[in-house]
Formats: sequence, structure tokens, C-alpha cells
Amino acid sequence: MAEQAGAGAGSGIPTDRVETLADTVFAIVMTLLVLEFIIPADLRAADLGTFLGDLQPTLRSYVVTFVALGVYWVGHHLQFRFIQRADRPLLWINILFLMVISLLPFTTALLGRYPDEQLPVLLYGSHLVAIGLVNELHWVYATRGHRLTSATLDPRVIQLAERRILFAPAMALLAMGLSFLSLLAAQVVFLLLFVPYSLPSRIERHFAHAERHGGKV
Amino acid sequence: MAEQAGAGAGSGIPTDRVETLADTVFAIVMTLLVLEFIIPADLRAADLGTFLGDLQPTLRSYVVTFVALGVYWVGHHLQFRFIQRADRPLLWINILFLMVISLLPFTTALLGRYPDEQLPVLLYGSHLVAIGLVNELHWVYATRGHRLTSATLDPRVIQLAERRILFAPAMALLAMGLSFLSLLAAQVVFLLLFVPYSLPSRIERHFAHAERHGGKV
Amino acid sequence: MAEQAGAGAGSGIPTDRVETLADTVFAIVMTLLVLEFIIPADLRAADLGTFLGDLQPTLRSYVVTFVALGVYWVGHHLQFRFIQRADRPLLWINILFLMVISLLPFTTALLGRYPDEQLPVLLYGSHLVAIGLVNELHWVYATRGHRLTSATLDPRVIQLAERRILFAPAMALLAMGLSFLSLLAAQVVFLLLFVPYSLPSRIERHFAHAERHGGKV
Amino acid sequence: MAEQAGAGAGSGIPTDRVETLADTVFAIVMTLLVLEFIIPADLRAADLGTFLGDLQPTLRSYVVTFVALGVYWVGHHLQFRFIQRADRPLLWINILFLMVISLLPFTTALLGRYPDEQLPVLLYGSHLVAIGLVNELHWVYATRGHRLTSATLDPRVIQLAERRILFAPAMALLAMGLSFLSLLAAQVVFLLLFVPYSLPSRIERHFAHAERHGGKV
Repeated sequence: MAEQAGAGAGSGIPTDRVETLADTVFAIVMTLLVLEFIIPADLRAADLGTFLGDLQPTLRSYVVTFVALGVYWVGHHLQFRFIQRADRPLLWINILFLMVISLLPFTTALLGRYPDEQLPVLLYGSHLVAIGLVNELHWVYATRGHRLTSATLDPRVIQLAERRILFAPAMALLAMGLSFLSLLAAQVVFLLLFVPYSLPSRIERHFAHAERHGGKV
Repeated sequence: MAEQAGAGAGSGIPTDRVETLADTVFAIVMTLLVLEFIIPADLRAADLGTFLGDLQPTLRSYVVTFVALGVYWVGHHLQFRFIQRADRPLLWINILFLMVISLLPFTTALLGRYPDEQLPVLLYGSHLVAIGLVNELHWVYATRGHRLTSATLDPRVIQLAERRILFAPAMALLAMGLSFLSLLAAQVVFLLLFVPYSLPSRIERHFAHAERHGGKV
Repeated sequence: MAEQAGAGAGSGIPTDRVETLADTVFAIVMTLLVLEFIIPADLRAADLGTFLGDLQPTLRSYVVTFVALGVYWVGHHLQFRFIQRADRPLLWINILFLMVISLLPFTTALLGRYPDEQLPVLLYGSHLVAIGLVNELHWVYATRGHRLTSATLDPRVIQLAERRILFAPAMALLAMGLSFLSLLAAQVVFLLLFVPYSLPSRIERHFAHAERHGGKV
Repeated sequence: MAEQAGAGAGSGIPTDRVETLADTVFAIVMTLLVLEFIIPADLRAADLGTFLGDLQPTLRSYVVTFVALGVYWVGHHLQFRFIQRADRPLLWINILFLMVISLLPFTTALLGRYPDEQLPVLLYGSHLVAIGLVNELHWVYATRGHRLTSATLDPRVIQLAERRILFAPAMALLAMGLSFLSLLAAQVVFLLLFVPYSLPSRIERHFAHAERHGGKV
């Protein structure tokens, strides 16, 4: 069985190091976003007001991506509440995940600089879809046949998490479709799509249950 | 009760991961400030002296923001000495906090580049007020009804910390008012407002007491 | 004996701090790579499509270096599964290792910007060779005479790891040679050379064995 | 007694968080140094060779500062092997230390860009002196009257460490003096001054002794 091999072989990398690398990457991507607030070297003091006003789309895309990073960071940790060990393929799915996450400052910058163009919206949407699919791959790989989780993990929790993960790329596709009608509507969806993730879910009730019995789930 | 729900449900994110993310964000924002010391590509060696002299406002705003980051970093840790668990809303207040902190290199750069303009001073002041309010929200959310703290935490400590947190935005408002009279005076207040935070407070006596009895407060 | 001195003297730096510094450096280098996706300040909306198309070499070199960083990060941790303590020379070999790793954004940028030139390929290849040699030095220093490892560590594992480490610089030399025939072929080798590292190796079987007996290897 | 107050009051910040913040700042400053390897947007392929040759001073200052950061990072950890608790003044001396460390990419960039000017050498030397003095302040504050160290810490170790710390700023002053005769000689001293720090010292023998008896020194 693949699961057996994965569980038995060990990867030499405990999950806590994977989480540290991810935490640091998330923190850096978050803080690099500010670099898009560029003050032109030749900006005259008299034009400061106009300049600040024109930054509105940049600020909007900053907020969207920061919230998205928050959601994925929380989700990454939630996954590792259930994942008990890492193997080499999981490590590499993680590195792939960080590779797409690390590109966010670029697509965010395009979104902020060209608020009246559809191409950046489509690119940003595709980026969210790509992140969502790698995220899903991460979860499916770890949980299929309880490969890297506790054997007693409730299958309903696995399925519930899967649906939660797929909600973001589904909405990103919707936003991309909407962009053919209205660019602003598409960007509003980008922001709103993350709202449900900030609400408690049924997964948490599972944690509450598990915590009363100690340790990882 | 909201508190009950928060405490009972668990967030799946222990407070130590929240602190790690925050630590890393603070460290990065601190080190990104140096990027504002830009050496123009065409700066001639003969103009080096003048160039260095002209960096004075940049250095001043560098120090102000570095000290501010130090204060908020210390304060963040002090809060987590009292906060025993995280729930989803607290996580999101934290992410909101990091979102406003991460913008500091931008408002700091404006302050350093336009030392003779009032607009950057007002913007920087508003930024400090916003940080202060999110900080306050963080504390109030965690402590109301002892939502995420020990049930035995002294209400006087809660109130004392609250007043300490609100001191910074109050002084920032004062600096903004002063800026109508003197830009330099306003910037001096920005720096001095952090001095009291470097002094020991009555909160520490509480820690000393708690430490003698072990564990979190 | 040199080994004795190293083991006996202690360095004052437990290996976990060395790993934290390395983790953070790797995470930052990974995220700094995105800075090479530069959007020219005067890029017109109409040229967005062309601009994105032209980014292909940049994306290719981004992927190559991200994967390389992933491999070296995993390898660094694998080494520290076997290394039980640090001494001053090991610390400095580590700092030398981070020094060459931290230059990767530069050689990667050259590779992405000049896809039709051989010089960046040769430079990038030499960079990989240099990283590989420092990596090898790290392992040889730590394991010779079991200087910093358990005395019971199987010599076959030491040799196996050594050969795995030297595979990357050997292939980089091959890619450099190939570049005289075809630049694309050379870059394909840069990417493919990391594939074997994502597969489980015989070293892992050793871990599985050791884990069953607890603690460091 | 001041020592008593410091030791008794506690700061609410255990030393491990201070070390994490410092580790992260050091790692970021190290990796930001690569940003000085700027590829001009209009660099023609034909000029690549010349461009790379001209980077030599940049590479030299990169190495000097990377090594310096390595030395201070090791030294910071060595100090915290002896420092058992933090108080508020120590926290702020630390933040001051990180504030001067974080400016290194700037003075390093000047050194690399103007290899034939004396001003950058004097500025860089002063920077090293400033770092050395804050470093010394850190150590003296923590150890005077055994304020934040074990009461049994050998006074000879305290003094030995003090002399080691002051060696760097002393040599930096020497380099500044030398720069009036030869700029190259001054820069060689900048690099060589860190060599003794990579050698084991008598302090390590103290560690070896302490480790045999467990815990912090």
C-alpha cells in the first residue's frame, strides 16, 4: 500500500519544520506587499494628495491578498492539526504550495496597477484557482486511506475540509466569469469569497471534541 | 455566552503559532525600513557628503518607526502573556493588526521624504491611531468576560493595560494637532510618545507575582 | 584528536538555532525571487499581454531556483537528523553555505533576463557547483571520524549521503558542458537534476529504522 | 538595588522570544544584501561580462558584511547562553542593537558602490564601532552585579567576553585610521578583524564545563 510505505518510511522532516518554513514564507509575502506602494522618485510635494488618492486600487488589492494569505495560513495550520507526519511527496506538495503563494505579490501588483483591465483580474483569478488546487492536492494526498493522519479521523471531517478548500477556487472562477460583465464586481467577489473562512465551521466542533481527549486529532 | 463559545470551540491554532507569525512580520517590517535609504544610481562620488546629510529626515523617521515597532512587538507579547487561547475572531483581529503594521514602511517613507509637508505627518499620525485602535480591539475582545484569559485575571490589570494601549493613539492625535503649529514638534511627539513604554509599569509587578506561582497569568 | 576537541568543547550554539537561521534564510530567498517579476513603471495596459508572454524565461528560472532551494532545504534538515551537536567550524561552514545560497536571486535573475546568452548559464551552473561543494564540506566535516554524529552512525549511510550531495554539482557541470551545444538543454538539466531528490532514498529506510528506536540517529 | 529590581520584576518577555526576533532580523539582513547586486534594466547582453567584472567591490562588501553578521549572530547567542532572564531595559538595548544591525545593507551598499572613496569606509567603520558599543552595553548591562545572569557566573568569563566584544570596534577604528593611507588595506582589515571570532575561545571551555553540569550557565 502507498499509505503504508509513506507512513512507515518517514521523511526525516517532522511536520513542525514544514510549518515553520510555511509560517515564514507567509509572513514575508505579507510584508513584501507593501513594496507595491511605490513613491516615485520625482513626486513633487504638491502632487502628494493626488498620488495618495490614486493608490486606492493598490490598497484594495493589498487588502484582498492580505486576507487571502490570512485564510491560507489559517487553513495550512488547520490541515496540520490533522496531519501527523510528513513524507517526501507531502514535503514537495508543500514546496509547490509555497511556490505559488510566493508569486502573489506579482499578480497583486498587476491587479492594483491596472484596475480598469480585465487581464489582471483573469490572471489573479487563475492564481487563486491554482493555489486552491494545490491546497486540495495537499489535503487529498495526506488523508486518502488515512495516509498521514490518525486512523480514527472521521471521514466526514475529511470531506468537510475538502469542500471548504474547494470553495475558494470555485468562487474565483465565478469572479473570473463576472469580470466579463463588471471588473469591480469581480474584485468584490475576490474579497467576499474569504468571508466564510473567517466564520467558525463544523470542523472546529471536531477540534473541541479532540482537545478534550488531548494531542493531535 | 459568546465567551463560552469562544473558549469551548477552540480555533485549531495555538497562540504560539500566532506569536511566531507576528514575530516574523515585525522582524521583516523592521528590516525593510532600510530600503528607504536609497542610493540614486547616478549619484556622483563628489556628492556623497551632501547625499548623506540629506538623509537626516529619513534616519529620523527610521528611528521613530523602529521604536514604534519595538513597542508594539513588546506589547503584543505582553498581551499573550495573559491570553491563554485563540479563537477564530482573535486570529482575524491579529491578521488585521499585522495588515496595518505591514504598511508602516510606506507611511514612514513618506514622512522621511517630505519633511516639510504636513500631509505625511497627518497620514503617519492616522496610521498610529489605526494601529492603536486595532491593538485595543485585540485586548478588549480577548479580555471581555475573561473570554480568552484566565478567569482569575485581575480586572485592574485588564483596565491598566487598556489605558496603556490607548496612550499611543491619544498622543498621535495630539501630534497631529500640533502639526498645524509645527511639523518638527509633531515629529518629536511621535518619538517621545514611545518613551513611557520603555519604562517598567505596574503590569510587571503582576507578572512578578504570577511568575512566583508559575505558568501563564 | 580534532574530533575529540570539537565534540568536547561545545560551541554554545545548539543545532536548533542553526536550523532556525537556515530555515528563515531559505524562506526569504524563496520569497525574494518574486521581485524579479518587475512591472515596468511605464508599461501601457495595451502591452500587458506581450509583457506577460515575455516573462516565460523569468518564470522558468523562478521554478528552477525554487525547486533547488526546496532540495537544499530538505537536504539541510536531513543532515541535521544525523548531526547531534555543532562546533564553531560547523557554524562557519553553515554561514558560508547561507552566504552562497543568499546569492541565488542574483544568478537566477540573470538566467531569466538573458535566456539567449551562455554566460548566465555558466554562472548559474558554477553557482550550483559552489553550493554543492560547501554542502559536501558541511557533511564531510560533521561525519569524519563521527566528529559531530552518533558514534554508531552506519558508515554506509555517511557514504550514501555523500554521493547524493555530489550528484547535484556533477549534473550542474554536465549542464554547463551541454550549454555549448544548446542553452535550452542546459536549463532542462538544471530542472531535471533535482528530480531524483524528490524520490525517497535508501537513507530514509535508515530513518525508519532509527525512529523505531527513538531520538536522533 | 537596580539589579534586584530587574531580576525580581521580570519583563514578561522570556529570552527565547528575544532570540527569535533577533534570529529573524539577522536572517533578513543577510538575504537583503543580495539586492545590491542590481542588474540595470537596460544592460545589453554584450556588456554582461564587463558588468560582472565590475561587481567585484560589491561582492567584496557582501562577504565582509555577511561574515560580520555571522559573527554578531554567534555572539548574540553566546551572550544568551549566559543571560538567564530579560527585563525591559535589556529588551530595549536589544531593539537598539537590531536597529543598528538593520542599517548594514545601506552602509554595505555604499562601500560596494564607491570602492575608491574614503567616506564610505569611514561610515562603515563608524557603523561597526556603533554596533560594537551597543553590543558591549548589552553585555555590561546584563552582567553587572550579575543582574540577569546566574550568581555563580565566573567574573573572569564576564571580563573575557567583554574584551572579545571590544576587539571588533577597536579594529574598526584601526581600519578607519588606515583608510587615510590605503583604502584597500582598510577593507582588508574589515574582513580580517572577524577571523579571530571564528576560532574557538577560552569561553568555550567554560561552556564545556557547564554543559557537563546541565542547563544555562
